[in-house]
Amino acid sequence: MQGQKSTRRQVLSAIGVLGGSALLYNMMTTMGYAAETQFAGPPKLSGAKKGASVVVLGAGLAGMLAAYELTKAGYKVQILEYQDRSGGRNWSLYGGDTYTELGGATQNVKFAAGNYLNPGPWRIPHHHRALLHYCKAFGVNLEPFIQFNHNAFVHNTEAFGGAPQRFRSLAADFEGHVAELLGKALDQKGLDAEMTAEDRDRLKEALRDWGMLDKDFKYAKNLRSSEHRGFDRPPGGGVNGAPSPSEIFGLSDVLDSGVWRQMSFFMNSEFQTTMFQPTGGMGMIGKAFAAQIPGLTTYNAKVTKLIQDKKGVTVTWSDTGTGKVNETKADWCVCTIPLTILSQIESNLSDKMQAAVAAVPYTNSVKIGLEMKRRFWEDDYAIYGGHSFTNQEIGLISYPNNNLFKDGPAVLLGAFSSGMGGYHLGGMSPEERIEVALTQGSVFHPDSYRKEFLSGASVAWSRVPWIQGCCARWTEETRQAHYQDLVAMDGRVVLAGEHASYVGCWMEGALLSSLDAITRLHKRALEA
Amino acid sequence: MQGQKSTRRQVLSAIGVLGGSALLYNMMTTMGYAAETQFAGPPKLSGAKKGASVVVLGAGLAGMLAAYELTKAGYKVQILEYQDRSGGRNWSLYGGDTYTELGGATQNVKFAAGNYLNPGPWRIPHHHRALLHYCKAFGVNLEPFIQFNHNAFVHNTEAFGGAPQRFRSLAADFEGHVAELLGKALDQKGLDAEMTAEDRDRLKEALRDWGMLDKDFKYAKNLRSSEHRGFDRPPGGGVNGAPSPSEIFGLSDVLDSGVWRQMSFFMNSEFQTTMFQPTGGMGMIGKAFAAQIPGLTTYNAKVTKLIQDKKGVTVTWSDTGTGKVNETKADWCVCTIPLTILSQIESNLSDKMQAAVAAVPYTNSVKIGLEMKRRFWEDDYAIYGGHSFTNQEIGLISYPNNNLFKDGPAVLLGAFSSGMGGYHLGGMSPEERIEVALTQGSVFHPDSYRKEFLSGASVAWSRVPWIQGCCARWTEETRQAHYQDLVAMDGRVVLAGEHASYVGCWMEGALLSSLDAITRLHKRALEA
Repeated sequence: MQGQKSTRRQVLSAIGVLGGSALLYNMMTTMGYAAETQFAGPPKLSGAKKGASVVVLGAGLAGMLAAYELTKAGYKVQILEYQDRSGGRNWSLYGGDTYTELGGATQNVKFAAGNYLNPGPWRIPHHHRALLHYCKAFGVNLEPFIQFNHNAFVHNTEAFGGAPQRFRSLAADFEGHVAELLGKALDQKGLDAEMTAEDRDRLKEALRDWGMLDKDFKYAKNLRSSEHRGFDRPPGGGVNGAPSPSEIFGLSDVLDSGVWRQMSFFMNSEFQTTMFQPTGGMGMIGKAFAAQIPGLTTYNAKVTKLIQDKKGVTVTWSDTGTGKVNETKADWCVCTIPLTILSQIESNLSDKMQAAVAAVPYTNSVKIGLEMKRRFWEDDYAIYGGHSFTNQEIGLISYPNNNLFKDGPAVLLGAFSSGMGGYHLGGMSPEERIEVALTQGSVFHPDSYRKEFLSGASVAWSRVPWIQGCCARWTEETRQAHYQDLVAMDGRVVLAGEHASYVGCWMEGALLSSLDAITRLHKRALEA
Repeated sequence: MQGQKSTRRQVLSAIGVLGGSALLYNMMTTMGYAAETQFAGPPKLSGAKKGASVVVLGAGLAGMLAAYELTKAGYKVQILEYQDRSGGRNWSLYGGDTYTELGGATQNVKFAAGNYLNPGPWRIPHHHRALLHYCKAFGVNLEPFIQFNHNAFVHNTEAFGGAPQRFRSLAADFEGHVAELLGKALDQKGLDAEMTAEDRDRLKEALRDWGMLDKDFKYAKNLRSSEHRGFDRPPGGGVNGAPSPSEIFGLSDVLDSGVWRQMSFFMNSEFQTTMFQPTGGMGMIGKAFAAQIPGLTTYNAKVTKLIQDKKGVTVTWSDTGTGKVNETKADWCVCTIPLTILSQIESNLSDKMQAAVAAVPYTNSVKIGLEMKRRFWEDDYAIYGGHSFTNQEIGLISYPNNNLFKDGPAVLLGAFSSGMGGYHLGGMSPEERIEVALTQGSVFHPDSYRKEFLSGASVAWSRVPWIQGCCARWTEETRQAHYQDLVAMDGRVVLAGEHASYVGCWMEGALLSSLDAITRLHKRALEA
């Protein structure tokens, strides 16, 4: 637990630097600069030395991909996995599932058949080409994940007396005010040194179009601004079909809302459209990977020691059911154990690698799933998928993207909390977390939220026994000091996982890291 | 054809006023101010007088909804339909279908099973509540229509030497430059009269976040700006995982692209997320409506005369197969015939209504479907649904939103053309249109577009025999002069359809108009 404690200190220190309500967004955006990936097709590894063996630690996506590709290359591969299932953080909780967290609280999930909570990854960017490649190759059906929803809400306790507003209205007003102000500045000539007169005129016309300004270059209450922000009386048919415009919000009110954070968030590479999710829950990916490597994985194997010498690697592990201690020997090792756990395992890894393993703090996200009797967000609010954001600890609520328009119970994500909110919710019992999620989420749907609630489930990643954190959160400083030491082959051992990538906290990072690691391992093995 | 000619003159005149490349966007945005709808649930009509009858002209959505609800209210209803099918503009073309346009050109559609072109409506906004209500009630399965795709292209012949750019890069750079410039203007104090000093400081920080400005408030080449616009070398895993930033485009280049038009377009109410399409093609809606009113429709019935007196309505029509002339009498008439056609039919409608019918020009859209051997836009360009825009006559190309990731042929929309481009393409033969679509669409996918092409189909709405135009295009002036005359009950006749709404060119407008019309008709009938 030493590693875990130092992790927490570092994250809390980072929180102090970042400060306050902008935290969630900052954490989301600093988790890596992932835009596209470096995937150039599956590796073409072949010709492993006869009898060469690899032990893979961890049956998450990185470990399973390593096992799959190394087996194809001719290695004798076995995987040791702590849990009784494959997939790691790629995981969905369904009705009938049981989950026990650190501290001993056990949750019996009661969702209706087909409904689920994805505690870990839940969406796939279109540029995560490695993951998309293997999903297709392994038969995982993907459906659109509705990331961007103009009609969902933005809530800030410091804005509009705590009343949520539709994203579209706030974003339209932000753009309208910015356009009007910049237009005024252009007229004042103070920016003339920045551009030609022709570009100044062109920019003015662009601002008028973009910001829905009127002929006097004002952002004002009229049918034009309402076309972006929404109408007071919407257009209809027949005799009373004429629309009427809505009031615009003043600049100061719009600034209170902080909507530019969501506007910027939606432009982040990881969150740009189009995004995807597997039909039936994110855990379908882990299951599809596992089906490709039948018989390779030993479950319930808790690794306690990792020792290498010039001839090979010896992994000591105990059976979590029987307590029996075993040793597994192999020529090479791909270790995908999360750094939070690896830092607690005895090894003779190099000092540099051990320092790197200890240096990387993990995030502490909490996710809460709430099953509701019906899709009131669709029926009553015209919200189909996407997220409503808040500066409360729950961070956001997210509406299901599957089975749109269907009757019957549905599970929405009632919290995706990080930073201080994550620690606060993580410190609570599962029942208390759901109470907080119901209270805070009710700001968006006051008439329905508690009334339609059926049951909930939560995962606080700091309390997940097999990882004790969510995912690696590198900073520029830790990258500089430790990243190359972490990813370099250390004798016969190489690390892989999202923590060994620049696409941190994403499945794509785990896969790209794994492909890079096994490509180097294979080269080293052929040279050995 | 008199009406049609005057329509064209008026539209061409409007084109002159609007001018040039902004035309497509202006047409799209002025087609109505539809944001939300005025639907308040299905009407509760009942208690029709014993034996009261209604003849409905046209089996499009407006006509079928009128027949459905009036039948439920107790009326004896029959529909006369010119075509041999129901649905009207709600229509999908599949492989095996044949379509003959005005001028005589016949197309035999060759698409693979399951592929289609939607010549008319193709997407449904989340706020079109009447349509969504009846889709659910009538069992139409809806799936997401991917309207907004950051990774699709924007092409302008006058920008970047004709090279398309990703929307994300242009939009990020537009926002970055706007943020930097407004930040400078705020520093110059010229805008101090516009806001408090506190709001000025808050706005500056908002601009920094939104525009991805650096610590010196510059929009510059760095990993921060690349997070929005895309990287040069994207982040990856392992040893070489570090990303590198991309060059930013200068303000003048961004202005050349006209990207603010797309940015504004995506914020228009009709095009805000989430949008939908029926599984299997838009025509599934018309089929579902038709299934609710079995036996009510007489097909191949060309209406030639509409005469009413104090006792009832007499409709004269000829069977388009046999030429036989018939008369149908009813107490009341709901006429959903498009104004382009109604203006050519003999009637004794009031002078005011006839003037209104003649006053409304119709748009002239052209849609072209191109079937490709494979989804190269997904495999090679990471574009999943959404649109790539161009200032060429095709207007845009749009990628299919169904069967994502699937192997085999797929149909993309190769043109959605209006204005001058619509007239130009409409004047060509179907073969010539496809040639233009292939040439112009190749700017986006030069290596694949012609190579992967299998077959195409096109619909130029000015040449569609039963409407001779696409949809009604009201202006503020024509609304003022004629709208109330068009929608008012004229004796025993009431008009319905998208043309009789403020949600013009949308199915929702047809439905809302129909509900309003039959509600008034029922009230009048009970009073009569």
